[in-house]
Amino acid sequence: MKEASDFIQHKIHNSFQKQGLMHTLGAEIFSVKEGEVIIKCPFRDGLSQQHGYFHAGVMSSLADTACGYAALTVMPEEAEVLSVEFKINMLRPAKTEEILAIGTVFKAGRTLVICDGLITDAVQETVFAKMQATMIAILPKD
Amino acid sequence: MKEASDFIQHKIHNSFQKQGLMHTLGAEIFSVKEGEVIIKCPFRDGLSQQHGYFHAGVMSSLADTACGYAALTVMPEEAEVLSVEFKINMLRPAKTEEILAIGTVFKAGRTLVICDGLITDAVQETVFAKMQATMIAILPKD
Amino acid sequence: MKEASDFIQHKIHNSFQKQGLMHTLGAEIFSVKEGEVIIKCPFRDGLSQQHGYFHAGVMSSLADTACGYAALTVMPEEAEVLSVEFKINMLRPAKTEEILAIGTVFKAGRTLVICDGLITDAVQETVFAKMQATMIAILPKD
Amino acid sequence: MKEASDFIQHKIHNSFQKQGLMHTLGAEIFSVKEGEVIIKCPFRDGLSQQHGYFHAGVMSSLADTACGYAALTVMPEEAEVLSVEFKINMLRPAKTEEILAIGTVFKAGRTLVICDGLITDAVQETVFAKMQATMIAILPKD
Repeated sequence: MKEASDFIQHKIHNSFQKQGLMHTLGAEIFSVKEGEVIIKCPFRDGLSQQHGYFHAGVMSSLADTACGYAALTVMPEEAEVLSVEFKINMLRPAKTEEILAIGTVFKAGRTLVICDGLITDAVQETVFAKMQATMIAILPKD
Repeated sequence: MKEASDFIQHKIHNSFQKQGLMHTLGAEIFSVKEGEVIIKCPFRDGLSQQHGYFHAGVMSSLADTACGYAALTVMPEEAEVLSVEFKINMLRPAKTEEILAIGTVFKAGRTLVICDGLITDAVQETVFAKMQATMIAILPKD
Repeated sequence: MKEASDFIQHKIHNSFQKQGLMHTLGAEIFSVKEGEVIIKCPFRDGLSQQHGYFHAGVMSSLADTACGYAALTVMPEEAEVLSVEFKINMLRPAKTEEILAIGTVFKAGRTLVICDGLITDAVQETVFAKMQATMIAILPKD
Repeated sequence: MKEASDFIQHKIHNSFQKQGLMHTLGAEIFSVKEGEVIIKCPFRDGLSQQHGYFHAGVMSSLADTACGYAALTVMPEEAEVLSVEFKINMLRPAKTEEILAIGTVFKAGRTLVICDGLITDAVQETVFAKMQATMIAILPKD
């Protein structure tokens, strides 16, 4: 998988900076390739569910964001991306110090882009959650 | 719809307090009835996506939590609840000062509970997102 | 809910006739209203899963079709409809002589229409399956 | 991936024979391995949607069945399997002479098994639909 163009890299980092929620969660972009974006997020108490592990909502937020930006890497440069919908399965309690959210493009259409999302530990060995998402391109003339 | 028992009210408020993410998002329980739990959350910049509205991840986190607790109101008193999976559609940008997450039980089975989740504005007029979720009861002997 | 226009009624019945699968399953249109389409289908052995009840695939096929046509009732007259995706929960074994698939529009956008689908018995008392679906309008100039 | 045991092979073929819908659709088991089941189905007019291609409902029925049996290969020998829910994206019109439904186990838990489902052409080059499914083991004492 090759690196995304400088234009796309800049566009995605710039957009990420504007996402207040990503700051609030303490998330950062880990990598931006063509068709794949990875976001990382260390654990802290403020991200927990009632048993002290990563909240399903944190995993959903990160996977949705990673999928959205992965979709953006295959859209026209002037496009913006919105989440149409996603489905996510929680596979096991996310007891770990840092999670990665890996968003990958599965099928790129002209309007809709279908993505896979995974939440894993820092070494991508254990998968905590699995997403299937539909993203839509918003183009200037729309 | 009638109020949940004091036991269930206490159990849910107690569990909610332990969810670090709910504090981080600034969310609070609005009501706990048998088969329905509502959570409210005012907007602030730290909850935004790149256009300045509520992030889909915030809506997912709140709807998932509301659905989980709604499921808990119809489970045995000793049960704990975990999210198996959910699917959520984003219906329109959530430009509003406060959102409600309304979780409702649609079908209560012995092990699995199927719930509906809605994200609305403060007066429940506009729906921003719609969830269908599967929750599982974890019982002490399991 | 009011009846759909004659144009839409005719368009949907005409399209339904072309669906080979609906003939194969023995399904028929029950009603076409603005924002709601109901399809009915009697049980026979050829529609069963391994325990002798309606197969989840039959319920999915009918609910998807009902949702698609419900979406079509709120789209421009020249539009065609395609299923983007759907999610369906099986709630209980569908042991019954006839099922209804009730497709309802929840949110009609310009391009995407979000629908609810239910599979019930003939008197709409028992719900066997619940769908949340995303439909897309295909317009001539697209 | 290794072949499933004779016991599991027999159990799945035997169950498949009892599924009236699979006969009606003209589907057959193609292969049964540990964690993966493939079903094949040739096109005929009786399986079409309104444009003459494979109906989304046929793809859903086959993918659901393939996922269910894939899950069964990793469950205890005495278990039966039921679909809890699935989500499927339609990726492109399924204009082809034969489709394969490939069900694969992604995460095998004690009670729940999460599966991936793909609908492809006969040579597994083009993917027409993509499913994420949750299956549940039903054990004799349950």
